[in-house]
Amino acid sequence: MGRPRVVIVGAGFGGLAAAKALKRVPVDGLLIDRHNYHLFQPLLYQVASGLLDPSEIAHPIRTVLRRAHNVDVLMAEVTGIDVPGRRVLTSVGAEPYDMLVLAAGSTTNFFGIPYLESHASGLKSLPEALLLRAHVLDAFERAAACTDAAQRARLLTFAVVGGGPTGVECAGAFAELFRHVLPKDFPKLDFGEMTLVLVEGMGELLGTFAPRLGRKAAKALERKGVRVLLNRVVRDVSGGALVLDDGQRIDAETVIWTAGVRAVPAAALLGVRAASLGRIPVTSTLHLPEHPEVFVIGDLAELHERDAPLPMLAPVAIQQGRHVARVVAARVAGRPEPSFRYRDKGTMATIGRGAAVAQIGPIHINGFIGWLMWIFVHLVYLIGFRSRTIALASWGWNFLFYDRPVRLIVPPGSKEA
Amino acid sequence: MGRPRVVIVGAGFGGLAAAKALKRVPVDGLLIDRHNYHLFQPLLYQVASGLLDPSEIAHPIRTVLRRAHNVDVLMAEVTGIDVPGRRVLTSVGAEPYDMLVLAAGSTTNFFGIPYLESHASGLKSLPEALLLRAHVLDAFERAAACTDAAQRARLLTFAVVGGGPTGVECAGAFAELFRHVLPKDFPKLDFGEMTLVLVEGMGELLGTFAPRLGRKAAKALERKGVRVLLNRVVRDVSGGALVLDDGQRIDAETVIWTAGVRAVPAAALLGVRAASLGRIPVTSTLHLPEHPEVFVIGDLAELHERDAPLPMLAPVAIQQGRHVARVVAARVAGRPEPSFRYRDKGTMATIGRGAAVAQIGPIHINGFIGWLMWIFVHLVYLIGFRSRTIALASWGWNFLFYDRPVRLIVPPGSKEA
Repeated sequence: MGRPRVVIVGAGFGGLAAAKALKRVPVDGLLIDRHNYHLFQPLLYQVASGLLDPSEIAHPIRTVLRRAHNVDVLMAEVTGIDVPGRRVLTSVGAEPYDMLVLAAGSTTNFFGIPYLESHASGLKSLPEALLLRAHVLDAFERAAACTDAAQRARLLTFAVVGGGPTGVECAGAFAELFRHVLPKDFPKLDFGEMTLVLVEGMGELLGTFAPRLGRKAAKALERKGVRVLLNRVVRDVSGGALVLDDGQRIDAETVIWTAGVRAVPAAALLGVRAASLGRIPVTSTLHLPEHPEVFVIGDLAELHERDAPLPMLAPVAIQQGRHVARVVAARVAGRPEPSFRYRDKGTMATIGRGAAVAQIGPIHINGFIGWLMWIFVHLVYLIGFRSRTIALASWGWNFLFYDRPVRLIVPPGSKEA
Repeated sequence: MGRPRVVIVGAGFGGLAAAKALKRVPVDGLLIDRHNYHLFQPLLYQVASGLLDPSEIAHPIRTVLRRAHNVDVLMAEVTGIDVPGRRVLTSVGAEPYDMLVLAAGSTTNFFGIPYLESHASGLKSLPEALLLRAHVLDAFERAAACTDAAQRARLLTFAVVGGGPTGVECAGAFAELFRHVLPKDFPKLDFGEMTLVLVEGMGELLGTFAPRLGRKAAKALERKGVRVLLNRVVRDVSGGALVLDDGQRIDAETVIWTAGVRAVPAAALLGVRAASLGRIPVTSTLHLPEHPEVFVIGDLAELHERDAPLPMLAPVAIQQGRHVARVVAARVAGRPEPSFRYRDKGTMATIGRGAAVAQIGPIHINGFIGWLMWIFVHLVYLIGFRSRTIALASWGWNFLFYDRPVRLIVPPGSKEA
């Protein structure tokens, strides 16, 4: 009789935390992901806006898990789950399990608007961020060579949809790129023709923060030249323009969509009924009610606390990843399984160079102190000495010189591109 | 009457040197390239082998030329040259010129072997280097999941063809990745099954160096576990294996082709007859004999000195780029045009961590001193404080810890990849 085999699907915040925590549990682990790297998704917008290189926010999974000798890594696409037979089906074969931890995360929610799906950029993967960076810089190159004023205005209009932390951080970062860096590279382009607009459906930015912080963020963005449109919903897309619910058209070559995420479609693979946003309801010990051997964590899991589902945030996923290892350890040892409780350590969002908002329980912080806290927290969570050093140097460099140095158009595409 | 318009095609070493040097010449310059960055091609193998990020060896052209106020930049593909009408035809329109500087460089020479063109990696562009990095790391991931011994051996066989500086540097870099870094990431893989072979057609590596240095390089590579095959020519490719002229078959999943370059096919665009390797013969003042207004420099130009064409090397291109600006300045001022003479400052190649060979006239250097010289020279030629700092730190890090930290599989491809 071997040790129980625990298969983890997904090397995001939740899956990686689970795999690391299994190090001290007497099981054989296998972590499956379709990429060979763990991605620090919340900083993708810094890659898209030319401040960081991919290798600062992505780290090889095998390297992160070098010391977890009982956990193997498999790079493969998961194609199905055989729940009765206890097997994960992948692009390179079937993997049997005694316990399964599904941590496959979430994906951009385009709310079924087909044009968006093909023309707007989400910010959930590294290729998406690199494509967005190439697309934005390419728009400036094309505008510089364009003699038609209307076409040029369209090329120089950038719409960020969604006023949550990702949208706010993204708009702030691009505003700095457009105001402080690119004018030096394009001295003949009239930056008065450039428009950066942030569209939010609710009456405040950063809806999950205190209203005061949302207003501070809106003011900070407007000082950077961002047009902030509140209470406006994207109704449709027609002829390459965003159409808002008040009839306003925004002719934008670039649309960055941060207005929502939804769980990856894993409920169908399990044959269970999905809750809101495709999430899978779990017990307080983080498994399916009918299948205690199938755990679901992170964005993919729906667990209610105080009458609301836990938010789709990295800290929830990390805490659940660690907790699932505790539940597995308890089950292997025959001890009672502990219930999960989320400890909210606060949330924060940076609005660019030297400014951030943070909310830690009743304490609200904004401005420079918020920014220093933001840097400290992100350095703690980034992986590896090299990433931390270069990211810290890049943030300091950006603060001193307003520069965003990684401005390469390397579009995913052909060998010869 | 405006100032003469000088159009430069290509922002490699030659074109960029010409554009910078035109800063002080009373002309209006335009530099056209299909990329928005200048690429430090000789270090591409360090991106492919996971030591450097793209942004350390590629730099936005517009940023490099910020102080050359009389030189514009256009990102476009050149589709034709109208020599009688003095216009460059591009993907975004025609650009008239009074003088043209063609600096479009060279491309991998696959010698017409069709399988090679589709299956082997050249090392001339950033997407090629990123694709090669993804391909090599993917081969290890697939080998780790592979239960068939013959298939696994094939996945773990890597052939570098060409024993010039690029092939030697490439083999050395991959040998370090395979021997010192990946075994820690793949503890269950038997690295005895791994083969790295370097195939060279002549009797020595580094044919342009003194024979003693070629022998030193071969010994250094063999100590790193590289199988060095001399006097072997790739005859054919059949069933996914390289077939050498002695009948030997090498079943390799990965073939890196550094066995030659040829000029880009620009001679046909000009309607002139190409010399060897597609190069375009020029006068000692670097223009076409029949068209003094059309200059050709760098890898694309053929100029004989001491009965041999000048080599296709960065220093030749840089010196010719600076020289062409001097010829243009002389012509504008009505002064006699100076002839070009190449000053050979020596050549060098690194064989990995802490070892390089260098040849400066009669002086031959190898080992650690050669490596320090190599680092110094490359820091001087890299562009930008950030690139230099990170590259120096990476080389030091590699020397101390044998690490090659940028091991991300981000294949050029789909948005979702």
